[in-house]
Amino acid sequence: MDERVNVKALFLGPKAENYGYFKEMLGYLMDDHSEWRRNFHPDDAPVVSADEQAGPDYLSTLQKTREALIELAGNLQLSSIPWFSPRYLGHMNADTLIAANLGYMLTLLYNPNNCAYEGSPATTALEIEVGRQLAKLMGYDPERSWGHITSGGTVANYEGLWMARNLKSIPLALKTCMPAAAAGLDDWRLRNLPSAEILALADQARAGGRFEELRRHSVRGIGMRGAGLGKVLVPQSKHYSWAKAVDLLGIGQEHLISVPVRDNYRIDVAALKKIIDGLAAQRIPILAVVAVVGTTEEGAVDEIHEIVRLRDRYEDQGVCFYLHIDAAYGGYARSLFLDAEGRFLDYNEINRQHARQGVLHGDTDWLTLDVYEAFRSMPEADSITVDPHKLGYVPYAAGAIVARDRRIIDLISYFAAYVFERTDDNPMLLGSYILEGSKAGAVAAAVWMAHRVVPLNITGYGRIIGYSIEGAYRFYRSLLSSPPLVVAGRRFEVIPLSRPDINIVDYAFHEQGNGSLEEMNRLNLAIYEQCSYKAGPVYLSDFIMSKTALSREEYGDAPAAFIEKFGIAAGEWDRLESVYVLRSCILTPYLTSNTTYEEYWRNFMQAMERAIGKACGR
Amino acid sequence: MDERVNVKALFLGPKAENYGYFKEMLGYLMDDHSEWRRNFHPDDAPVVSADEQAGPDYLSTLQKTREALIELAGNLQLSSIPWFSPRYLGHMNADTLIAANLGYMLTLLYNPNNCAYEGSPATTALEIEVGRQLAKLMGYDPERSWGHITSGGTVANYEGLWMARNLKSIPLALKTCMPAAAAGLDDWRLRNLPSAEILALADQARAGGRFEELRRHSVRGIGMRGAGLGKVLVPQSKHYSWAKAVDLLGIGQEHLISVPVRDNYRIDVAALKKIIDGLAAQRIPILAVVAVVGTTEEGAVDEIHEIVRLRDRYEDQGVCFYLHIDAAYGGYARSLFLDAEGRFLDYNEINRQHARQGVLHGDTDWLTLDVYEAFRSMPEADSITVDPHKLGYVPYAAGAIVARDRRIIDLISYFAAYVFERTDDNPMLLGSYILEGSKAGAVAAAVWMAHRVVPLNITGYGRIIGYSIEGAYRFYRSLLSSPPLVVAGRRFEVIPLSRPDINIVDYAFHEQGNGSLEEMNRLNLAIYEQCSYKAGPVYLSDFIMSKTALSREEYGDAPAAFIEKFGIAAGEWDRLESVYVLRSCILTPYLTSNTTYEEYWRNFMQAMERAIGKACGR
Repeated sequence: MDERVNVKALFLGPKAENYGYFKEMLGYLMDDHSEWRRNFHPDDAPVVSADEQAGPDYLSTLQKTREALIELAGNLQLSSIPWFSPRYLGHMNADTLIAANLGYMLTLLYNPNNCAYEGSPATTALEIEVGRQLAKLMGYDPERSWGHITSGGTVANYEGLWMARNLKSIPLALKTCMPAAAAGLDDWRLRNLPSAEILALADQARAGGRFEELRRHSVRGIGMRGAGLGKVLVPQSKHYSWAKAVDLLGIGQEHLISVPVRDNYRIDVAALKKIIDGLAAQRIPILAVVAVVGTTEEGAVDEIHEIVRLRDRYEDQGVCFYLHIDAAYGGYARSLFLDAEGRFLDYNEINRQHARQGVLHGDTDWLTLDVYEAFRSMPEADSITVDPHKLGYVPYAAGAIVARDRRIIDLISYFAAYVFERTDDNPMLLGSYILEGSKAGAVAAAVWMAHRVVPLNITGYGRIIGYSIEGAYRFYRSLLSSPPLVVAGRRFEVIPLSRPDINIVDYAFHEQGNGSLEEMNRLNLAIYEQCSYKAGPVYLSDFIMSKTALSREEYGDAPAAFIEKFGIAAGEWDRLESVYVLRSCILTPYLTSNTTYEEYWRNFMQAMERAIGKACGR
Repeated sequence: MDERVNVKALFLGPKAENYGYFKEMLGYLMDDHSEWRRNFHPDDAPVVSADEQAGPDYLSTLQKTREALIELAGNLQLSSIPWFSPRYLGHMNADTLIAANLGYMLTLLYNPNNCAYEGSPATTALEIEVGRQLAKLMGYDPERSWGHITSGGTVANYEGLWMARNLKSIPLALKTCMPAAAAGLDDWRLRNLPSAEILALADQARAGGRFEELRRHSVRGIGMRGAGLGKVLVPQSKHYSWAKAVDLLGIGQEHLISVPVRDNYRIDVAALKKIIDGLAAQRIPILAVVAVVGTTEEGAVDEIHEIVRLRDRYEDQGVCFYLHIDAAYGGYARSLFLDAEGRFLDYNEINRQHARQGVLHGDTDWLTLDVYEAFRSMPEADSITVDPHKLGYVPYAAGAIVARDRRIIDLISYFAAYVFERTDDNPMLLGSYILEGSKAGAVAAAVWMAHRVVPLNITGYGRIIGYSIEGAYRFYRSLLSSPPLVVAGRRFEVIPLSRPDINIVDYAFHEQGNGSLEEMNRLNLAIYEQCSYKAGPVYLSDFIMSKTALSREEYGDAPAAFIEKFGIAAGEWDRLESVYVLRSCILTPYLTSNTTYEEYWRNFMQAMERAIGKACGR
């Protein structure tokens, strides 16, 4: 039997193709749960009698619930976004896995809280298991690493930076409370110890029974005291949660340095090097460098291998920083690189494997060596954000963070001993080791179900994400080769922003001969507005896209090259400093079949023609 | 027709009494959603053919999902906690509202993300509505206040302290960047401006076009720089999230001051006053005071009216602090004080109203003037944490925060303008105004459904929570008047810790004549272990309780009085510094009927007898 998942059997489907199956399972879970209730102390009498259930206030209360549900249903039907459809080409959304939805719904009826084991004996264990699976997906050693679910990538990023901040402050704490251990190390050196060395020092303190004291003297105990811990370097393509993170953590936004990106929207490694050199020359420490795997706006994959190389080289020179990867979006795509046994595939073999497994067809020609090397180097980072509710095709709210060395959680945890030393008497209190407190066990169950049915390698997620990349590349190539649309005698060309590193395609339309960036921005904004909730109920839209503005304030001059492709003079960029692009995250797995794709592409271009017509006042 | 909800019609029920209704509605929501999918571009062909659906890999994928669901179901059945049963007398859990569950499940299929309006046109609006409802419940002016859902009370507490911290730093920022506006105010005064004055200063800066600059000079921009913003005062009864909060926010745990509680586990207002006096004398500012409405361990309600009086008096003396109430647990109980029109009930009238509305029966004699005044004064606080997933009977993860003056969110928001000035072109991006980013719209829908069916006053939540308080008081009184249990000729008495302010009852068993606190602790721990997941599958437990240790480290000498009630010498407390108590949060609404209650009480005491017997090695 074929061990690979059939992708179409995983989702309810654009036409609810798997309605019968889903509904049957829904009935099953309802019955199963109800039986559980009835069988708990079968001798206990029901609390409601049949007479009461027939009473007018009883019936009116049920009716009230029914009416509220009908109102909600109408509301949702009117305004919800049809993620499920191949016509949805906007944000990082698609249909979600049947397995995850059923897992969520079943567990919701039990309502466990993973904050404490006592409120979730079943689902705390599932969360730990999921954390290990994600750590393994990232290439970490599951025995030495740590991972858990968060409410999203934003909170995972906070937690990553929280760990970094508290770790960085340990050597200075050591100097205060155990000066002997810090002997011979000046302040610059103390601010520049590699993560592993800091963790080893913390272990020493623990062995000497002084770990609590050390923590008390670290930033967790004494608070942030100005800029001593250094700068946080993030690429211009960063998610806005990083600006929130440095505010929240008391680091301050002025200590966040934006590192330029190139015109492929990957971090400019040379620029990063220059910034590090500059800071080192001024003896300003670096708290952390953040790299991105799958930028929010472009899906770009930073060259992690180059950043890791840089980090290692600087470490030799005594300039050390924490490395976090924000792979909230791209993290699950690492399953494209793992064989069924979890081995990272050889570059020379990978295209053949993808073809053989039906992950990608030969003519997609997606994978570049840079992207391959970037994914391969991910386990070199100290921690990674990876969101199941993005390329994990799991419903909200499910983010996650994984850390290479589990000892680091002691630096943010509320209890003295760490989770892996918990005995039976002191079981897992997740809430004590993570940023959040109460958290739905149903989320863990949903992710666990997803991973159970869809393995985190080329036989499972690799297939779904492979399908989506194939669809994205078809779309990208169609855009590249599309002849201009002729609308009322005027010719409109479309150009993609850059070659997609994963499955996000940005692009813009432009009237040939138009030299005004303002005009071009107006056109794309108008197209967007007709392909979004702004045109009225989304339900009536032909296609739904998202948009983004690439501004000089955020991106420096990286977008200038794109504008030039349209033949617009550089001066226009200097004047407007912002270009609108249409943005399509192609998560749908349904654009691989030729007939389906070609029909949607034709429909899409017809919709664009209509939208441009309207935008031009016809 | 009776407008009051019938409480028993609101839950699936301990014996799944409302199984038929729930399952019917489940079928409805599945059909309704599937129709929505089919009707979106009805002309689009299905992506799966009947042939494909009959293929072996298709069927095996469906089977894989089925098997995973069955495995999960077995797992949940084996280890889940039967919150639904009146036999569950442990943590802050009970059955959850059918309306909330259905709302969650329906919305899950649409999978909106309330981070951005564009991903959740329907449910962002519901979240804003729920925020206003909760603000109104707290007595805030819905037009001037602000509220939203968080993943839990922990995150709500973080956000409250984040707002407090950033607010407190504004006057100092003013001095740096707009010295004229701060003229005549010395640093002590700048650190001691009342919240309203700070917000007015921020408004001035905004009017002068200098708000961004002001924010940049506040802590969000420059980071925490030592202890300048002052201390955070929280009662000893605090939730551990406060220790995490001061770490996370860069304030530092050494700036968290634990304020003693009295032997009723409410904050000792005289001690609070003394601490404030001491700090003021040393010119150490106070960043915030936190009060608790419904402590985690005892359900105690701090005397908010006294704290507010203190705050106002100190304000006149130029000592100002932010006041946050952690009403994660007790917040929804404010619905017991509101009539159907939302008016706060008169103290002289409230017992009659409760009796008339069937909220509480006359002989419960629950409400004291202190508790009444505490709830009445809640709107005087700057912000309040209130969790729908606790006394809102909504599934996880649903916390919330409400703030008295919505202008405060500008101090933590990522965008310049604030949400209420958003135009149609810039709709609500919740993620920019709150701590979290991605968040399930399904949570908002669940809470909205709950509030739709169960009004936030004595006709709705007042009834559910009233039933639970009545059950708690029956239990409390039964414990008070229970004759000693005789086990193998030995006599064991039980004494409750304190009169419940809401519906949490703590108590301990003790062998008469035993003078050893160690022995008493051992007994109660043994009882707990037989009434928890520790005794094996919870499914086989007769009753499930929780326990807590009241230690000198956390509570000072507040617990000493309790031990004396058992005739144990004070020296024992000095020696052990910790007493175990059994803790029953009585959220179940089913202990009001005489027959049900008496049966459960009898069963409970029999179970205790067995547990004590086992504990004593029989």
